[in-house]
Parts: sequence; C-alpha cells; structure tokens
Amino acid sequence: MSLLTVGTVAFDSIETPYGKADRVVGGACTYISLAASYFTNDINLVSVVGDDFPDSELKYMKKRGINLDGLDIKEGEKSFFWAGKYHDNMNKRDTLATELNVLADFNPKLPASYKNSKYLMLGNLTPEIQMKVIKQMKKRPKLIVLDTMNFWMDIAMPALKKVIKKVDVLTINDEEARQLSGEYSLVKAAKVIHKMGPKYLIIKKGEHGALLFQGEKMFYAPALPLAEVFDPTGAGDTFAGGFIGYIAKTGNTSFENMKRAVIYGSAMASFCVEEFSIGKLKKLNARTINSRVKKFSSLVNFKLD
Amino acid sequence: MSLLTVGTVAFDSIETPYGKADRVVGGACTYISLAASYFTNDINLVSVVGDDFPDSELKYMKKRGINLDGLDIKEGEKSFFWAGKYHDNMNKRDTLATELNVLADFNPKLPASYKNSKYLMLGNLTPEIQMKVIKQMKKRPKLIVLDTMNFWMDIAMPALKKVIKKVDVLTINDEEARQLSGEYSLVKAAKVIHKMGPKYLIIKKGEHGALLFQGEKMFYAPALPLAEVFDPTGAGDTFAGGFIGYIAKTGNTSFENMKRAVIYGSAMASFCVEEFSIGKLKKLNARTINSRVKKFSSLVNFKLD
Repeated sequence: MSLLTVGTVAFDSIETPYGKADRVVGGACTYISLAASYFTNDINLVSVVGDDFPDSELKYMKKRGINLDGLDIKEGEKSFFWAGKYHDNMNKRDTLATELNVLADFNPKLPASYKNSKYLMLGNLTPEIQMKVIKQMKKRPKLIVLDTMNFWMDIAMPALKKVIKKVDVLTINDEEARQLSGEYSLVKAAKVIHKMGPKYLIIKKGEHGALLFQGEKMFYAPALPLAEVFDPTGAGDTFAGGFIGYIAKTGNTSFENMKRAVIYGSAMASFCVEEFSIGKLKKLNARTINSRVKKFSSLVNFKLD
Repeated sequence: MSLLTVGTVAFDSIETPYGKADRVVGGACTYISLAASYFTNDINLVSVVGDDFPDSELKYMKKRGINLDGLDIKEGEKSFFWAGKYHDNMNKRDTLATELNVLADFNPKLPASYKNSKYLMLGNLTPEIQMKVIKQMKKRPKLIVLDTMNFWMDIAMPALKKVIKKVDVLTINDEEARQLSGEYSLVKAAKVIHKMGPKYLIIKKGEHGALLFQGEKMFYAPALPLAEVFDPTGAGDTFAGGFIGYIAKTGNTSFENMKRAVIYGSAMASFCVEEFSIGKLKKLNARTINSRVKKFSSLVNFKLD
C-alpha cells in the first residue's frame, strides 16, 4: 500500500577507521526509501535537491519503484551536504561540515497523487516541515511514523512537541528518549512519551538493538553483532525504511506485526553499515533479506523447558 | 549436581541515587551462591570472612543448602569491605574504599568432600587463587566457569591468561572483552578469546543484556528494561550464579541449554538490582523466577510470517 516518505536526499562525506568516502549519496529519505523499496513499490518521495544530484541515482530510485514527482530539483542550486568523521568505536562522530543549500528554504508541496498515501514516514527534518506535510494530507494516513533527533529538541522543542502529538510512532535513540522525557529509565521515558501523543515508541540503541513500546507492551530486538561495522551513516534511517516498508507491505499495524517490522528494520540496518553510503542497499534481494532475518531469529530464540 | 562456588563473602557500603546502605552483606560468592541456591541445594562454598560476619547470615545461607565447610572464619580479623558510589545513570561507579582485611592472605583449602564437585564457579578474585582452587580438584569438573574483571587484566595479565586457559566458560563485560582481546568488535573479540582456551564466552553488557558465544554460534539475551534500578551491585555475580545453578540443576551443557541458563541468569540479575544488597534475592521462589523468565521470553519472542 502507498507509502509517503519525506526527508533529505543529499551528499555525505564520511571518514571512518576503515576509509573515506567523498560526496557520496546520502540523506534520510534516500536510505528510508531504498530500504522500503524492498517491501513495497508504491513509494512517494518528497524532498529537494540541487541540479548537482546525479541523474543516474534518480533513475535508480525510480527503477526501484520510488515515485519522484515530489522531488523538487532546484536549477542552479546545490544539494544538502554533510561531512562527518567517526571515532574508533563508531559510536561517536564529529560533524565536520553542514551545508544546508537547497534545504535552507525547503517548502514541501505534495503532488495531488500523494495526498491519499496510506502510510507516512517523516524522516529527520525541522518539525515545521514535518508538520507541513501532515497538514497537506487529504486523509489521515493509517500510520504516521516520525523520526527526529536531539538537535531539534535543543532548538525547537515546542514545534517538535506539536508534531509529535500528531504521530503514531516516534523513533528516537536512547539519549534522545531521555532528553525528551526527562526520565533516565527507558521504561519510564516510554510512559512519558506515550502521553505526548505517540501510541508506539521505538527507541534505537545502535549496536544494542531497539526497543518497541506500546503501553505496557514491550519488545526488544537485538542488533546483529557484526565482525565489522564499516560505516554507520544512515543505519537509523534504513531501520525506519525497513520498518515502515514492512508495515506498508503487510498492511497490518498490530503489535505482533510491528515486532516483525522492527526485526526487518534491524535486518536492513545491519546491511546498511556493511558498506559506505547506499552501497550495500543496492545489492539486496528478498532471499538475502530473509536469510538475514532468520539470523535474528536464531540469535534471540530460546525454548523454555 | 554438586556445585563448588569460590569468591568473596564480604561487606559493602553503597550509595545510589535512591539511597544509602551501610555495611550490608555483599561479595561475589554470596551473590553467586544465593542465586544458584534457587536451582540446586548441593552447593559447596569456599571463601574467607572475619569474626565480624553476622552468624544470622551464615545460618541463612546454610538453610538455603549452601555448605559452609569451606568457609574460613578468621578469629579477631575483619571481613573484606568495599564502598562505592553510583552515578546518576548507574552505569558508572566510584570506589570509595577497599579494605582487603582477611582477603589479603586468603589461601583457599578445599575440604575433601568438595574435591569431586561436578561444577565449578570461580567468582572474581586474584587469578592465582582461582588457579589454586582448580589444582585442588581431584577430578576435572564437567564445567568450569570463571568470572574476572579489568583490574586483573591491568595488573596480572600473565597469571590471568594461565587460568583462563583452564576454563570452559569465561564471563566478562564488553569493555573487558575488548581489553583482553585487543579487538573492538565483540564478534572478533570472541574469536580471539576462544583461542585463549574457553569454548564458551559470555559477554555481559549490563542494561544491554548478554551475549553467549561458542565458536560460530551466538545467542543474545536481553536485559529486562526496568522502571527502576535500585542498586546494580552484585548483578554480574547473580547472573553467574543463576547461570551455573541452572546448569548444575539440569546437568546439561549443550548450547541450547546454555541459552536457557543465560536467560535464567539474566532473570536472577533483574531481581538483584531491585533492592540493596541481597534483599531481593532472599524473597524469591520457583514461581516468581519462572514468571520473570516468561517475561524475557515475551520480550524477545517473535514469529516470522
């Protein structure tokens, strides 16, 4: 079923202990849409790029079923650019450069055909832009998922809380859950955040997996321990894309199915980190994905006697 | 089946954001033995205390099936004492005082009846003492588990490596696995540590759960997300006690059964942190433990479609 994805389509320059990648394809919406495209081919993308964004990459996205009618290509302007360097343990990174470029005055306009999309995935962006997208929908989507980060909590908490109130699923990391709720315990944080609006909360813990909360219900998905994490950029977005893609494919928003969606999201994220940029995300198929998901199953599965 | 437990029986003074506890019962062997006593009542304890250790606590341990023939009670001397203060997030702590007292010249002597124990749990102590215990065994136990910490890696790595070579299961935390192996990735660390001797490796990650490795096999047990962690002291020892207690009860060292043992250990640790000292460990029974284990099952269990 139709999925609307919103977020950045951009360039990244990345340095990790394993090497460097200069001005490679990145952006939350790129990762989200590509990950989701392995589950559904009815994807409506909303974003903005400059005329420097490679046509070949756009063609590839179209080939994977991603509708680019909502991609604003600004002539004579440059795409959003981020540069960062990861520390040895990959858990911390320094931002070396952020050039907003086309993003500075991004004002998303949804094509008419997008306005009835059944699922909405709002990638990390200013809360105001996320709100603008929600307001343009003709019908309230069956499920709205919002990803955000500490940066918006620091500088735009009131606007962020307004948009959080309107969504069904919030995805943030553990530190952000603590910042947003003022509670250190994630169990207590979830209770506070539920009261802010979202019925579901997904707390991403990087190499330690992810927690899904719905009221008193709780589900813990591990991250797959990997011999090598090559580049963590985009892992959270890829997780979100796999999650919402699986929901859109199955059309089922029960807690049981959300658990599976979290596992599929985790599996997609485990691929993402194996290569720079979207390198690995271009090489997958249903077989490799299902085989990875089975690894998750055997990793945590146990039988009581 | 008979289980030999070795380690400290001691006093702790603890400060956490929830309160203070002054000179309460602690020590690795106390936590290990009490946790194990919920699974087997054939436990042989080896440790040393001063004459300041309360008789009532020793009586309680005996009542729980813990044989104290191997507990050396030194007249006119004081028990080992540790004082520590936890930071707000409970993941870091400062040691405020360490008084070795009777531990300074502890030379464990195994009563004859201990020397055929089928399972051996070596709690955190100097590697030399751990080795002395192994050498006194008449028959090689079916399974030897060793717990240690970064302190011994810093000051006694050669002796530690010698004793690690002789054990089947090593339990350490993630930072210690990295220090011991020189590898950041836990998957790579496990491979290096397997080559040092232990067929099994358990990496404890505190609030993020535990990983069990055996060659290419890997199992991930979550920690139960709790609303309140009251006092983390002894959680790792309680985990080890629950683990080896379950193995001793079932007499089964297959990987499938070790998975269950890791879950039982995690369940016992989740109780331990709910009160100061051994407070909560005194209040359990088979029903409360099984109900907690079921929570772990529903926390991670998912069905693929």
